[in-house]
Amino acid sequence: MERKGILFVISGPSGAGKGTVLRRVLEQETGLAVSVSATTRAPRAGEIDGIHYHFKTQEEFDRMIENHEFLEYVAKFHNKYGTPKAQVLKMLDEGTDVILEIETIGAAKVRKEFPKAVLVFVTPSSYSELEKRLDRRGTEEEAVKAMRLKIAKTEYKSMKYYNYIAINDDLDRCVDTVSAIIRAERVNLKRNPETVEYFRHID
Amino acid sequence: MERKGILFVISGPSGAGKGTVLRRVLEQETGLAVSVSATTRAPRAGEIDGIHYHFKTQEEFDRMIENHEFLEYVAKFHNKYGTPKAQVLKMLDEGTDVILEIETIGAAKVRKEFPKAVLVFVTPSSYSELEKRLDRRGTEEEAVKAMRLKIAKTEYKSMKYYNYIAINDDLDRCVDTVSAIIRAERVNLKRNPETVEYFRHID
Repeated sequence: MERKGILFVISGPSGAGKGTVLRRVLEQETGLAVSVSATTRAPRAGEIDGIHYHFKTQEEFDRMIENHEFLEYVAKFHNKYGTPKAQVLKMLDEGTDVILEIETIGAAKVRKEFPKAVLVFVTPSSYSELEKRLDRRGTEEEAVKAMRLKIAKTEYKSMKYYNYIAINDDLDRCVDTVSAIIRAERVNLKRNPETVEYFRHID
Repeated sequence: MERKGILFVISGPSGAGKGTVLRRVLEQETGLAVSVSATTRAPRAGEIDGIHYHFKTQEEFDRMIENHEFLEYVAKFHNKYGTPKAQVLKMLDEGTDVILEIETIGAAKVRKEFPKAVLVFVTPSSYSELEKRLDRRGTEEEAVKAMRLKIAKTEYKSMKYYNYIAINDDLDRCVDTVSAIIRAERVNLKRNPETVEYFRHID
């Protein structure tokens, strides 16, 4: 039996810093592929199609939904974001570990489709700390900030579906925690039946 | 609900280097208590009673067995080795993580009594590598070496009861693997129900 890839999911409320954590983890861990999301939102300065996102029109995105081409997708502030299914399945099948950074609603869908996926909830150590961070960002209107906090509350309620929590009060420590989770899951014997078999048959 | 300590068990065949791995892990990880084993074997040069082992006479050891004072004990090459139960239970109860380095037979007993214990199987990447190491040691008679290898074969069959495998071909990598397992288990949400509760009740 060939080892299949492990699907890792990094999620958590906005403001928790999950995007930064993911980039740092990718710098320090090897053998980890990242799935490029599709989105209807406009590219920001410096963002490259196919690298940061697959940029799609509303029509293209909706056609992908109809064709069941997404592992998960969510609508967020008038834009849609989704994980194209085909590339993820291919990588896992080839034995490559894949990591996704997605919203908690998407993560719940992934959990349903991939019960063996490893879900990591990234969060500051308290809700008040999250509030402070959204304040410090200062780039958003009050209404958007209030909506993010309201959404965060519902997101925290989904924590029970996750396997791990990675507290992001200190970025380096949080990155180390996520790296540790990845390394540990790779040597989890439930995920390595062929290793157990190998040692069972020595003579 | 207070967080209870996690019981980690490092085990594997003799020659796998589990003792060295444990010492290195203890140097680099904090908040991890080690349980001092009791033994009937004579102290080696430099070994201190109560630090390296609790040295016991056969009679004292047997009385401890009768009084059910051991979490596990094994007989090995005419000597007995055991883990005194009281100190381990006390530390776990106080929320301290405890790590034991024991034989696979003992590990199986611990698994039975503590289903939530985390069992790590330390081994070279192949059986032939284990044979080479026992050869390189060169300090043992052929008969002892042959017996160790015979025991190792039965030990490998118990691997299916373990949670993780830590390949010890390169000591630094193996130590990092065991550290990753410890860090990951500490943030496993199944072990942190109070964290889930905390975030569930924010308002």
